[in-house]
Amino acid sequence: MQAEIISIGTELLLGEIIDTNAAWIARQLTTIGLNLYYKVTVGDNQGRIADILRNSLRRSEVIITTGGLGPTVDDVTREAVAEATNRDLVLDEALVAEVAGFFARMGRPMTANNRKQACLPRGAHVIHNPVGTAPAFAVEQEERVIICLPGVPHEMQYLMEHAVLPWLRARYGLTGVIKSRIVHTCGIGESAVDAQIGDLMHLANPTVGTLAHPGQTDVRIAAKADSEAEAEALIAPVVSELRARLDEYIYGADGETLASAVSALLVEHGLTLALADGVTSGELNLALSQGAQGRKGLVGSLVAPGVAALLEALGLSTEGAPSAAAGARAAEAVRRLYGADLGLALVGPDDPTDAAAGMIYISLAHADGVAQAEPRVPRAGPSGRGWLLHGALDVVRRHLLGLEIR
Amino acid sequence: MQAEIISIGTELLLGEIIDTNAAWIARQLTTIGLNLYYKVTVGDNQGRIADILRNSLRRSEVIITTGGLGPTVDDVTREAVAEATNRDLVLDEALVAEVAGFFARMGRPMTANNRKQACLPRGAHVIHNPVGTAPAFAVEQEERVIICLPGVPHEMQYLMEHAVLPWLRARYGLTGVIKSRIVHTCGIGESAVDAQIGDLMHLANPTVGTLAHPGQTDVRIAAKADSEAEAEALIAPVVSELRARLDEYIYGADGETLASAVSALLVEHGLTLALADGVTSGELNLALSQGAQGRKGLVGSLVAPGVAALLEALGLSTEGAPSAAAGARAAEAVRRLYGADLGLALVGPDDPTDAAAGMIYISLAHADGVAQAEPRVPRAGPSGRGWLLHGALDVVRRHLLGLEIR
Repeated sequence: MQAEIISIGTELLLGEIIDTNAAWIARQLTTIGLNLYYKVTVGDNQGRIADILRNSLRRSEVIITTGGLGPTVDDVTREAVAEATNRDLVLDEALVAEVAGFFARMGRPMTANNRKQACLPRGAHVIHNPVGTAPAFAVEQEERVIICLPGVPHEMQYLMEHAVLPWLRARYGLTGVIKSRIVHTCGIGESAVDAQIGDLMHLANPTVGTLAHPGQTDVRIAAKADSEAEAEALIAPVVSELRARLDEYIYGADGETLASAVSALLVEHGLTLALADGVTSGELNLALSQGAQGRKGLVGSLVAPGVAALLEALGLSTEGAPSAAAGARAAEAVRRLYGADLGLALVGPDDPTDAAAGMIYISLAHADGVAQAEPRVPRAGPSGRGWLLHGALDVVRRHLLGLEIR
Repeated sequence: MQAEIISIGTELLLGEIIDTNAAWIARQLTTIGLNLYYKVTVGDNQGRIADILRNSLRRSEVIITTGGLGPTVDDVTREAVAEATNRDLVLDEALVAEVAGFFARMGRPMTANNRKQACLPRGAHVIHNPVGTAPAFAVEQEERVIICLPGVPHEMQYLMEHAVLPWLRARYGLTGVIKSRIVHTCGIGESAVDAQIGDLMHLANPTVGTLAHPGQTDVRIAAKADSEAEAEALIAPVVSELRARLDEYIYGADGETLASAVSALLVEHGLTLALADGVTSGELNLALSQGAQGRKGLVGSLVAPGVAALLEALGLSTEGAPSAAAGARAAEAVRRLYGADLGLALVGPDDPTDAAAGMIYISLAHADGVAQAEPRVPRAGPSGRGWLLHGALDVVRRHLLGLEIR
């Protein structure tokens, strides 16, 4: 069984907006064991969309389109499906009434254009859309199916979850599932992870692979099985093995971020944290506040560009270059300023991306003193920022877990 | 002349990483007047990539692929191009020497796998890659061309700019250009912009359209012409007209953000700004620090969750709910704390996304007093955050330009 996704919209094609729908659909299809082999993006042009659909019908059983179902002249998905499957368009009066009902509930006027949205290729199955005005539909053609969904992400997601996935399972007797678990590590590089778990990467089911991010290495375990429970049973022992081998480097799994893991640890230990941030321009505070625990545990930040401005704002003397000693003073001062249990300071050169300008010091003040991480060499770019954020958060995580600070 | 982009990589297909290359290439192609009609994503599978290439060769003159040029067994773009164009792969010894040179310069060992990267389809033109290890190439086939670029964004971009675009211009005698200008407004909604400039949206060349973002409405002007100068000449009077009509709402154009515009105004006026942030968790500081002026003008932030924590950290008494008066005290206090010319305070409910919990107050302390913006109702979600950030930045912009604060 082969599936493909067709994203329709000139703005997607020209890169004016990023297509997040296709990635979301791809992940959903893998959960029901459908293999996705192609993803095509095409502009709002009936002839070209129809060409693409004819191509897709030759090679794939399930074709899912997004976009082009609105009321304007640009929206031509209905016409293109009719053309590609040699059908005419017919007005579905029941659907007109449904769309009219939606507009009435929203207190908005229904225009003549909206009737166009109820014109579907002859024989199409309507996929009722209670969360928007664009009716979706499916057309079966010689054991294949074209499923047309709106481009608005929340409408598309609602219809996939409530209508399309259940229908595909039933229609094609899809009993297989693919489940995956992602185990997140920090403070250890991809090659060191490879060295620890290389043998597991030769397993056939579940498969095990690594994926490197700045400051974080993920291990992905994916199992194919007849049921979710069976897939879970295949995955669980591998996760246990990973936990045994990578142990203190593992901070969480799946949707968890290091920031949310640290946030949860703070709440669990009933401790508060304040930040003296001379390096990340507030990004560390923002990351910590976006975890599942929200802003709990985090009592605030003092942010300033560079060590001198930071120490001055903390009421400290500002002599000297960034150093572990300056970091310790800042960490203790911000801990006092906010009356927090922990004070984390990042001090570094005025340009925290300039490797030649000096080191970045991460210091954590707590009730019994100050812990120092190994100084970091500044790195530029988004990956440099991610690497530093993870390094700083990992200092807090290790302190809270009683692990050695590195 | 028809172009298409093929993005190669299973991780792109499965939505594990977002494809930003295709959007970037799409924008570059429009600048040389090449029309992009299709964008296809395919996994790391030689047969399927070859199928896609055969399809593309039937309909498009210029085919650009990204990805699959690395040294691992997963990297099969070279093999797929050879298959689709009925060529064999031949080792290019000069290219081996070039790759070896790159590794030598980086002080990294070259493996046997890296030799594979120098095996190209017979007759391919090498596109030399001084910024990475993956050699790129182009294969001409019956008046059509397949151009294969690496997937690493900075390598791909370098090769497009330095080799591919100049080559395409010369090879196909492309003299037409499409140029666009984007004018950014803030503090005015899309429908109000439409009402001001609706007549301009009927122009044929340049075309004029609007695009709404949280807290910001863009106007895009796009012109087709034989040269950049001609296109500019078509665009300029429309931009002047927009400036006349939208005047104080326009903060910048093209790549400029409101944060960078505010940052530039601070530097231009020789003024410094400090933030008392009880609402955005440091995001406002981060946004301001990411403009072209970097951290100039911005002297720091005091960040705390909620008004009580913020006032306490500023050494102020913490009685009372969020209010304009509390905002004014925080703005003045943070201005003093950092010794800044301007102090901007955001105070609001402990949950700054809860519309029922009270209003958000934006206050700007300056040498002559405190300016207050109209209180904002909290809004949830990323668009609510964007709207609030733009609102706060616009207060500073309007103050610096001597405009009424709203």
